[in-house]
Amino acid sequence: MARRRVIGVIGGQQPPPEALPAAESVGRLIAEAGAVLLCGGLTGVMEAACRGAKSAGGLTVGVLPGGDPSEANPYVDVAIVTAMGTARNVIVVRTADALIAIDGSYGTLSEMAHALEQGKRIVSLGAWDLVRAGVEPSRVLPAETPEVAVRLALAEAARSTMAGRPGPQP
Amino acid sequence: MARRRVIGVIGGQQPPPEALPAAESVGRLIAEAGAVLLCGGLTGVMEAACRGAKSAGGLTVGVLPGGDPSEANPYVDVAIVTAMGTARNVIVVRTADALIAIDGSYGTLSEMAHALEQGKRIVSLGAWDLVRAGVEPSRVLPAETPEVAVRLALAEAARSTMAGRPGPQP
Amino acid sequence: MARRRVIGVIGGQQPPPEALPAAESVGRLIAEAGAVLLCGGLTGVMEAACRGAKSAGGLTVGVLPGGDPSEANPYVDVAIVTAMGTARNVIVVRTADALIAIDGSYGTLSEMAHALEQGKRIVSLGAWDLVRAGVEPSRVLPAETPEVAVRLALAEAARSTMAGRPGPQP
Amino acid sequence: MARRRVIGVIGGQQPPPEALPAAESVGRLIAEAGAVLLCGGLTGVMEAACRGAKSAGGLTVGVLPGGDPSEANPYVDVAIVTAMGTARNVIVVRTADALIAIDGSYGTLSEMAHALEQGKRIVSLGAWDLVRAGVEPSRVLPAETPEVAVRLALAEAARSTMAGRPGPQP
Repeated sequence: MARRRVIGVIGGQQPPPEALPAAESVGRLIAEAGAVLLCGGLTGVMEAACRGAKSAGGLTVGVLPGGDPSEANPYVDVAIVTAMGTARNVIVVRTADALIAIDGSYGTLSEMAHALEQGKRIVSLGAWDLVRAGVEPSRVLPAETPEVAVRLALAEAARSTMAGRPGPQP
Repeated sequence: MARRRVIGVIGGQQPPPEALPAAESVGRLIAEAGAVLLCGGLTGVMEAACRGAKSAGGLTVGVLPGGDPSEANPYVDVAIVTAMGTARNVIVVRTADALIAIDGSYGTLSEMAHALEQGKRIVSLGAWDLVRAGVEPSRVLPAETPEVAVRLALAEAARSTMAGRPGPQP
Repeated sequence: MARRRVIGVIGGQQPPPEALPAAESVGRLIAEAGAVLLCGGLTGVMEAACRGAKSAGGLTVGVLPGGDPSEANPYVDVAIVTAMGTARNVIVVRTADALIAIDGSYGTLSEMAHALEQGKRIVSLGAWDLVRAGVEPSRVLPAETPEVAVRLALAEAARSTMAGRPGPQP
Repeated sequence: MARRRVIGVIGGQQPPPEALPAAESVGRLIAEAGAVLLCGGLTGVMEAACRGAKSAGGLTVGVLPGGDPSEANPYVDVAIVTAMGTARNVIVVRTADALIAIDGSYGTLSEMAHALEQGKRIVSLGAWDLVRAGVEPSRVLPAETPEVAVRLALAEAARSTMAGRPGPQP
């Protein structure tokens, strides 16, 4: 059985400055745990996470919205070229065994919502506070540090792999 | 120039009971205004809105997640069959000249997020309170009644058609 | 039961000149039969078919590859905005109850192949001769005139609606 | 610059028996050349190619049509989960720097057509004879053996990377 564990990191291209070192640490810790780093393949949080993963010799996969593989950031090993615009966000969410959200862009919000719709919990490192909007608190796992975020995500990935993927929630 | 104005109604399959008469009224008012009613084509809010539109002789379009047109509710005139699962939510949002959200399902949340990402404002009739999660207040237009919701949506559609579609927001 | 019969017309943006009057006749005949004309929404064969349908007071739906509804040709009533590039070809094929291919572009070839993969027969009005490439002859219905093409397509649509949609073929 | 070369192998789930050892050799040779093997992630040609690539220690990526990563064959390292049905064929074609077609299923035909539409040439190892259907002969590169197929594909990939991706053809 070859299939490798995949941790998705979601976040925007223009995050607040403090998000970048956090994303880089998250990427590095994912790679050190032997998991594949998945992201949207562009700049900002995505590039920082890929750079971190590559610094630890990890494998990085970027699911691009456009049709040109060269739009991937330079730390993407495998560029998945969708040419499907933001519909690629759905693919990022479905592909990840667990998700870490870093940031407050609207694209990230859409990915968090798709994760909730697919019955996946989200590890949040300073992302949208969806509990205040009415999301059930157990669905979002807040993390204060990259270390805690990656530990929670790896546990979620193990849980999802053992249980089979959870189905959509009503 | 044949292109007709399209108002999208987003909402889930298992809404609270009070959402259904509201959705039906919204659908009826959209049809009375001469606009096309667009939705996800299934049951719940979607079916109620389509039923309302048909009661006023309107045209209804349902963008289905599955591959079988017969999954459309019986009030859908034109079933767009995507077989793309929840990626069809993105198509609903892109196709609508304006959007009315009725409900608190996670699928609806994803559609609201995609609308924000595409630079579209959302008319909310009891939907997710995203302002409490940090969304800029000007991006969500609260409506207390179906009449106000449809009036706001028609104004948004006119604005978006005149200005060209807004681009994505940072 | 509101759902209307949908006939898809597939063909490219730069067809040979004789394809355009044929496409216009096909569109007109589809509308006269009370069916919805579905296409890719752009120019060439698509625009000619829509123009024909509108000349007979029909309803036209264009499934656009880009993200801007104004890329639809002026005879499209309802523009479905996918922003999914040529993946929208799959939606055209799935949505149509029957398909008429007019032309020899590679996009049209992809749509014919998706139709075959979905177990749908294709009415060909001068399109790719896939039988010469090895496709089973019963899967392609050649038509010499727009009248024959539309008659065959309406029969296919009636057959597919009665039987339920056919499944994918091995 | 981390991005790795990606060779796509396209072929169906129920190929003729002789296609399987050919696909396995193709997969092995792709891995030996240091390229990533991309495919649709399921059984038949896809599984044989992945098995070959893993026998040589390569990296395999499967772009799945369904929503469950466990539908990937056991030789897929990274399962991209699209839940977009056959629209995932478009992603396979866009992601590959070069494509080798092995087989005569309709899904493979659709991928060959999308490749042509995107301006990519196809290496054919016993796949559909599209030249007989009217495709320009220079667009299909016939190969008699797995060795020749992989050599041609690597040359195409080098060409496409140097030139930038070719655009769509009229």
